[in-house]
Amino acid sequence: MPTGSVRSTWCAVPGVRLASAACGLKADGRDDLVLIGFSQGSETAAVFTRNLFAAAPVEICKRHLGIASPRYFLINSGNANAATGSSGMADALACCNAVAAVSGTDPERILPFSTGVIGERLPVSKITDEVEDLFSQLSDDGWLRAAKAIMTTDTIPKVSSRQIDTGAGQASLCGMVKGAGMIQPDMATMLCFVCTDVRASRETLQGLLEHAVNRSFNRITVDSDTSTNDSCTLTATGLSGVDIDRDSGARTMFSEALESLMVELAQGIIRDAEGATRFVEIRVINGDCEEDCLKVAFSIANSPLVKTAFFAGDANWGRIVMAIGKSGARIDPSRVDIRIGDAGLMKNGGRDPDYTESAGTAAMAGEEIGLTVDLKSGDCSATVWTSDLSHEYIRINAEYRT
Amino acid sequence: MPTGSVRSTWCAVPGVRLASAACGLKADGRDDLVLIGFSQGSETAAVFTRNLFAAAPVEICKRHLGIASPRYFLINSGNANAATGSSGMADALACCNAVAAVSGTDPERILPFSTGVIGERLPVSKITDEVEDLFSQLSDDGWLRAAKAIMTTDTIPKVSSRQIDTGAGQASLCGMVKGAGMIQPDMATMLCFVCTDVRASRETLQGLLEHAVNRSFNRITVDSDTSTNDSCTLTATGLSGVDIDRDSGARTMFSEALESLMVELAQGIIRDAEGATRFVEIRVINGDCEEDCLKVAFSIANSPLVKTAFFAGDANWGRIVMAIGKSGARIDPSRVDIRIGDAGLMKNGGRDPDYTESAGTAAMAGEEIGLTVDLKSGDCSATVWTSDLSHEYIRINAEYRT
Repeated sequence: MPTGSVRSTWCAVPGVRLASAACGLKADGRDDLVLIGFSQGSETAAVFTRNLFAAAPVEICKRHLGIASPRYFLINSGNANAATGSSGMADALACCNAVAAVSGTDPERILPFSTGVIGERLPVSKITDEVEDLFSQLSDDGWLRAAKAIMTTDTIPKVSSRQIDTGAGQASLCGMVKGAGMIQPDMATMLCFVCTDVRASRETLQGLLEHAVNRSFNRITVDSDTSTNDSCTLTATGLSGVDIDRDSGARTMFSEALESLMVELAQGIIRDAEGATRFVEIRVINGDCEEDCLKVAFSIANSPLVKTAFFAGDANWGRIVMAIGKSGARIDPSRVDIRIGDAGLMKNGGRDPDYTESAGTAAMAGEEIGLTVDLKSGDCSATVWTSDLSHEYIRINAEYRT
Repeated sequence: MPTGSVRSTWCAVPGVRLASAACGLKADGRDDLVLIGFSQGSETAAVFTRNLFAAAPVEICKRHLGIASPRYFLINSGNANAATGSSGMADALACCNAVAAVSGTDPERILPFSTGVIGERLPVSKITDEVEDLFSQLSDDGWLRAAKAIMTTDTIPKVSSRQIDTGAGQASLCGMVKGAGMIQPDMATMLCFVCTDVRASRETLQGLLEHAVNRSFNRITVDSDTSTNDSCTLTATGLSGVDIDRDSGARTMFSEALESLMVELAQGIIRDAEGATRFVEIRVINGDCEEDCLKVAFSIANSPLVKTAFFAGDANWGRIVMAIGKSGARIDPSRVDIRIGDAGLMKNGGRDPDYTESAGTAAMAGEEIGLTVDLKSGDCSATVWTSDLSHEYIRINAEYRT
């Protein structure tokens, strides 16, 4: 894993309490269940996977969000409850009902989230047996333990926070995310929960969340695979009194803090990606449109040959050229420049006359690699973050179920 | 490498002579240069990579094919002459000029082909120094040695033949191909040369070649990467006297033999794919259109998580479901069935009630895996062939230049 890497900084968010437990979904006895409670009046926005085989809890979340504002999230790791058909839906609802019964809340105010192996029935009673205990342990300092409990192949908990000081007062944001493989989110990544104490309508939150997701989780890839369970939520308790619906200055400040927080969490996934030894930032600049820049960036980021070259520390720019050329973006090959760090590899579609193997090797030596592709045809750009493809990725994914 | 595997059956094709040599492009002294000569009156059809960074020899081939019918192919391995700009074009032309000078032919009747490392200048004199010797060795039984000489990371030569007995007489087809990585051809694969002694116009050959390529090389993937040098040619010497322009029965027979030959060569690439331990056939049936079936098949075939599960012999059908759901094809998830061999994994979008882990493991035990996805919504289908993703793939591609 690249060092330098994932900071875990959390802060309490007024109105948000968390509890974690081990209910036996993970064979090794680690925590695998989290309950998050929100104070009355909280609003939640959410985005979900676009995979057509969306998991049962994703379907339940969408349905419940259409009915009421959530008061509780119940999150399990170790089992994705995906591709489980109508019994999977019933299982997710049974979990919601257990939380509703203990709390005296409507079941529609509970959102269920699951992550883990696809295609296995959820062992519902293991989860529901634990709910009453979870309620007794809810506290506003449960972030780090919760971030650990939602991990699967992750090796480190990923939690980050921001505090903003607006003219209307102070407010906090804190979020956690899990995910290390099956990562090219198409809307949001595996599971991400961000909470804040600003006051906002759900429409405002949804708009801000989608904007931030598009510039964070939708810009990372580990292996080009899109999970069935991707979910990302933004919940605002309103308890700080900072109202971003009314105060546009505070809204701008909040939006920037949210994007910054979510970029940090998204990069945290890449730093903790399965088997990763490098953190790679791919900047595609001066393209005709953002879509073409993204096509080029993801074509490079997902190429197994480029990723194995990153693993080897080999400035094999021929493979980068290949990936640009197959991307489907409308580009003029004769204008393209490629740089890694400060080392020019390609200039105007041919080998950079100043390029030397030793400069290329030096540029690839670190754990953090910055690759720039200059299309020199317009004024749009896009940045994507990815990891390398290592022996360890193969080992982890060949052994995951065995 | 899956056994069972690549047969090398060649036959002489009247009017086609081959010679091979080691000119020093490969560091270990193996053969790396091939000359193929065609009798006067031969016609050649060809398809090339759609990668925007097409190599210099690809550009020269296209230009020369627009001017005259080829008499000679000069093929080198060990250097792709790609991303080499205007000097790469000059280098490829210098090779053509050397062949033209020795043979007394116009340079436009020479086609150059290169495969190997991208971004290095071609050492032209090593090649041109060898041309005179190559001419002295041309013979009609040089197929197997030539198939070895064009290899890079391939481990076995891939050459196949067909003989057809038409009402108008007998005719032969023989072809060779190289390629093991950077393989998801988008038109043709790395290098493939098919020769026959039927008589046909270039237009006829081009139509038959494109049809066969679409059902063979455009249906395989090792790693989703599209080479800068993909080229596939079909040359007809006409010496059998069988005229497929005039005889529609012979044309049908020839077309079927050509497709069968090219499917065998394409499958040969997958059997010899970098690091492969499994040969996987993915059939997507009963879709609304062929395009959707291909999207589903390639999404499965290119998923690193599915490929590592194949490597592990793990019937991890949740990953297959994930890959179907992210494919972008218009499907109804609640109808989908998945089978591996005879073992049902998914039925109507949920776990197959008859599925057992032991049946799944048994179905994954062999070196040849047949996966069927039944979309149950239409009457179109598509088949794609792929390999697994192993430690050996990482090793080969992390060490390729070092």
